[in-house]
Amino acid sequence: MKIGLIQSTASPEIEQNVRKTMASVRSAAKRGARIVCLEEFFASLYFCQTCESSPFELAEPLESAFIGQFRELAAELEIVLVLSWFEKQDEGVFFNSALVIDVDGSIAGHYRKMHIPDDAQFHEKHYFAPGDLGFCAAETRYGTIGVCICWDQWFPEAARLTALAGAEIIFIPTSIGWHEEDIEAGLKDSQFNAWQTIQKSHAIANSCFVAAVNRCGTEAPSSGAPPIQFWGHSFVTDPHGTILAEAGESDEVLLADVDFAEIAPVRRMWNFFRDRRIDAYSGILKRSLKNAGGSNGES
Amino acid sequence: MKIGLIQSTASPEIEQNVRKTMASVRSAAKRGARIVCLEEFFASLYFCQTCESSPFELAEPLESAFIGQFRELAAELEIVLVLSWFEKQDEGVFFNSALVIDVDGSIAGHYRKMHIPDDAQFHEKHYFAPGDLGFCAAETRYGTIGVCICWDQWFPEAARLTALAGAEIIFIPTSIGWHEEDIEAGLKDSQFNAWQTIQKSHAIANSCFVAAVNRCGTEAPSSGAPPIQFWGHSFVTDPHGTILAEAGESDEVLLADVDFAEIAPVRRMWNFFRDRRIDAYSGILKRSLKNAGGSNGES
Repeated sequence: MKIGLIQSTASPEIEQNVRKTMASVRSAAKRGARIVCLEEFFASLYFCQTCESSPFELAEPLESAFIGQFRELAAELEIVLVLSWFEKQDEGVFFNSALVIDVDGSIAGHYRKMHIPDDAQFHEKHYFAPGDLGFCAAETRYGTIGVCICWDQWFPEAARLTALAGAEIIFIPTSIGWHEEDIEAGLKDSQFNAWQTIQKSHAIANSCFVAAVNRCGTEAPSSGAPPIQFWGHSFVTDPHGTILAEAGESDEVLLADVDFAEIAPVRRMWNFFRDRRIDAYSGILKRSLKNAGGSNGES
Repeated sequence: MKIGLIQSTASPEIEQNVRKTMASVRSAAKRGARIVCLEEFFASLYFCQTCESSPFELAEPLESAFIGQFRELAAELEIVLVLSWFEKQDEGVFFNSALVIDVDGSIAGHYRKMHIPDDAQFHEKHYFAPGDLGFCAAETRYGTIGVCICWDQWFPEAARLTALAGAEIIFIPTSIGWHEEDIEAGLKDSQFNAWQTIQKSHAIANSCFVAAVNRCGTEAPSSGAPPIQFWGHSFVTDPHGTILAEAGESDEVLLADVDFAEIAPVRRMWNFFRDRRIDAYSGILKRSLKNAGGSNGES
């Protein structure tokens, strides 16, 4: 089965981004993709580079024409569509969200980003409340689809909970890039490799597929700070951590063949889930175990 | 600060293995290593290839001449020594264990392997009770030392709990290799890469150092089954997942320079621990969340 990842630069014009993205989705479907995933906030620039009020205007509720047009598109193309958007639930209650839309346009899954970053030019805690819907594994015609969003990708707990809930593939819409100072400090390769490694590790630890869908292009913030260079390189990995397809650093409709029937034999070969020490993991629910006697005290 | 990893083939002769290992530890210390880690069951062949009674004879209690000689060695060389051994606590109560011995020969940490594998020619559930001491972060003169053992290396929970307990470096004594059928099936590279990737990911996810110390050489089981080719390639990774040193596939005293002062700035840059959703991780304590409504229901 083919899946499609839409890696794209964005402009300041929402309509233009939506039109371009819809065309890419149609192209992916035409080339045989049955599940298509969009990057994080494909509809706009990455607006979290500064702390302002105006970007809240970009947010859309679940019941909106913005979402409606993508539900119609999924139904028309009979594809599963994984869609990232800036969700408004109420005034002052905004989320970094994603939908899993099934082939008939119905909503199979609704996810709100659980881990919210806050870093220079990634001021997400200003815009988003922490997700309150738990982790997501949505049953669709083409398989059980997990979604994590960007920062979630660094947390093994997120991938584990998504996989334990049944996800055969975890899609990770992302906006990750280099600060100019990272590039000057020679950190390009080490940051990119860490990003790819941690996501491959989720596939390995959970014997499932992982697909990271990243933004590309350079975006300068209104603050006048140096731009972020979103690094693209969207990729799909199989349950062994072997990369099946990887994009470059510019606009691309990336296709990959995945076969969820590969998961069962891998899980029966490695048997990681069998051996998890669920009796001894309660320390995971703590922020830190330092000064707790050097050991977590579990037995 | 230098650390030393002793990667070694083993013979059927315990005395000979101990003598050889002690010489390697002396060599590492002489070359400046302040912490030295031995591979899993350095004192014997990997005896879990078959299910028998006789290998239980290899087990030694904590208070034994076998352990005593290594405590003396650590004190003599004023090094921290991470030692894997087959522990007998009682008749019918055996563990796959490790000690962290401090520079004065005292025991800083005692760990019993938490995750026990069971696979063709890796019949560890026959020999070892599951660890009952929790995860290990032992304070020593040269830093806080975590220990996981072999199969533990595939479980992000083990690394997370070890790091949360304060480990600056996680040593992972290991006996991993290829079955002949893996080699014939062309799985060599994918298995090796998965092994290296998952351990690099622990360093990245937890902003700490990781050192995997693997056995090398080919060992044939008494059953007449084809031998296991232990793949060596012991390595040390920094908190970015960058490999600092990597051994080949034969006997080697591998040295690497590590600086635990690098951890704090990395943790303050990435801030993963700040953002963990400890309110939403209770599903980690379940074996599976399938048929729990598609989501783990956390909020």
